[in-house]
Amino acid sequence: MADHSFSDGVPSDSVEAAKNASNTEKLTDQVMQNPRVLAALQERLDNVPHTPSSYIETLPKAVKRRINALKQLQVRCAHIEAKFYEEVHDLERKYAALYQPLFDKRREFITGDVEPTDAESEWHSENEEEEKLAGDMKNKVVVTEKEAATAEEPNPKGIPEFWFTIFRNVDMLSELVQEYDEPILKHLQDIKVKFSDPGQPMSFVLEFHFEPNDYFSNSVLTKTYKMKSEPDKADPFSFEGPEIVDCDGCTIDWKKGKNVTVKTIKKKQKHKGRGTVRTITKQVPNESFFNFFNPLKASGDGESLDEDSEFTLASDFEIGHFFRERIVPRAVLYFTGEAIEDDDNPDM
Amino acid sequence: MADHSFSDGVPSDSVEAAKNASNTEKLTDQVMQNPRVLAALQERLDNVPHTPSSYIETLPKAVKRRINALKQLQVRCAHIEAKFYEEVHDLERKYAALYQPLFDKRREFITGDVEPTDAESEWHSENEEEEKLAGDMKNKVVVTEKEAATAEEPNPKGIPEFWFTIFRNVDMLSELVQEYDEPILKHLQDIKVKFSDPGQPMSFVLEFHFEPNDYFSNSVLTKTYKMKSEPDKADPFSFEGPEIVDCDGCTIDWKKGKNVTVKTIKKKQKHKGRGTVRTITKQVPNESFFNFFNPLKASGDGESLDEDSEFTLASDFEIGHFFRERIVPRAVLYFTGEAIEDDDNPDM
Repeated sequence: MADHSFSDGVPSDSVEAAKNASNTEKLTDQVMQNPRVLAALQERLDNVPHTPSSYIETLPKAVKRRINALKQLQVRCAHIEAKFYEEVHDLERKYAALYQPLFDKRREFITGDVEPTDAESEWHSENEEEEKLAGDMKNKVVVTEKEAATAEEPNPKGIPEFWFTIFRNVDMLSELVQEYDEPILKHLQDIKVKFSDPGQPMSFVLEFHFEPNDYFSNSVLTKTYKMKSEPDKADPFSFEGPEIVDCDGCTIDWKKGKNVTVKTIKKKQKHKGRGTVRTITKQVPNESFFNFFNPLKASGDGESLDEDSEFTLASDFEIGHFFRERIVPRAVLYFTGEAIEDDDNPDM
Repeated sequence: MADHSFSDGVPSDSVEAAKNASNTEKLTDQVMQNPRVLAALQERLDNVPHTPSSYIETLPKAVKRRINALKQLQVRCAHIEAKFYEEVHDLERKYAALYQPLFDKRREFITGDVEPTDAESEWHSENEEEEKLAGDMKNKVVVTEKEAATAEEPNPKGIPEFWFTIFRNVDMLSELVQEYDEPILKHLQDIKVKFSDPGQPMSFVLEFHFEPNDYFSNSVLTKTYKMKSEPDKADPFSFEGPEIVDCDGCTIDWKKGKNVTVKTIKKKQKHKGRGTVRTITKQVPNESFFNFFNPLKASGDGESLDEDSEFTLASDFEIGHFFRERIVPRAVLYFTGEAIEDDDNPDM
């Protein structure tokens, strides 16, 4: 019965209230006359945890009223905070433009379009101080190394398989990559993050730039992440800044027979009446990193997603965020593994 | 010997190189002729982890050179990122001014200087929809509650022990609070965060505002945190934004006999020659939350801190950050416990 959920100390009318009060008195009398029940009761009461919310319940109504007023102020703070994060997003846009020339140079070194000068490729390793102690010896080694480099070693163009190596190094990505995805990912030449224009709804696009290849004719595959920086009406206090709320992929123009996101299965079909058997072929979805460009839709038909889909989508958002926040800004460190060590042992 | 650290595969001159090559050949021959050694060796080789850095080692010199160039670009990115965080800090400053009127109102409701209006103290609880179903019944209950409030309940000023309750609710703080600190903390009326002025070195001050009390004559106790937003020269890739690098406390003008940060101990002292015993009293440091205002110094004399001091300082920085980022902006949620539940079960 609906009434029952409110029966705890909340009588529904004054007659019932009087009845309850009388019952309460009777029960209290009974308990007070039974020392064993009383002791057991005391023990139970002692074990009730004194949580902050149980403390709030004990406060006078006038104080609770003032706490409500503080909560209203807190909601207003959440809305100001949302504006703050929008301005931070504007700053991120501004800085994206400042990083871009460095990222362009990075792409040129990776593809081999441009060779870094000696000054551009100087690097002082962490062990350098130690190495300096070795003095003359080291100089001789350097000469040997240089000779080796010119005499015997191959000199491939740029940094081969740069982005593919990052996919291999980052667990979150390598889990998605199938064996048949690998030769395709070796053609990946750059990943860019593009922010939405000022005044537009908050979003960003991941652009995956590919060199011409035998698998698809697109030169760029895109994944767009839509964000929201607004406290939830039902739960304004959970607001912690912008979050990804939806995403969109792109159509991949697969060359004939090269689409790794589907597989062809053969199925035997028996005619019910005649009993004859025929074999039909059917295309079914196939596991592949490239399903990343054909994500589930979070919104749209208003229906809520099942638990599995919720999980898949949350993982997708996490990957999108990780590309934007970590991999694209620090690609070389994910290539060498330096950023990966940091993630395992956060040193904060 | 210093040379030894470079002996692995790096012969120091060509004579030694030739000698090593001959030794290597001999050893290889021996191994190849012993199947058991060979099997054991194979197993060991299989267990060598293929880390990203071991992969980098296998790359041709020309490619390593290009990777160095990417690292140089990455350092330049870190310096741009530092500027970005400085601008974010400016934004935080700007928004601090926007929050302040709400925080001032909060303080007035807490101290009881101002009573919230009915509109200001309206609050729709999460269970409201459910409660609405109860319709008429609920109205009657509300009347009963109001009667109770006016007829029987005490009506203390403002929200008593608001900040002290937060200290009790937040583990990181309650661990520092001693029994004798509690009556002092009940006089705490507000905590404010003040950012450094634009153009000044990045820092913030926590101001603890106290009502007049029997313990000290200060009305405000301060703790200043100095920050740095600059990649470390020795390890630029570890840069993740501004961090607290040092802090400063303030002098507490304790009233006579009220200083809880020291305790007086009595000590018996025996005269070596005469064998007479006298009792001396000595003031020694005492555990107290108020030691928060007399922190260790991170910098200054150039000497590095021992491990214990490093840990103490790191905890202090963490508490300062927590006050600024969480407690001051969301005080009511730490008072009611709502923010604490969120921290235990991060729902992201």
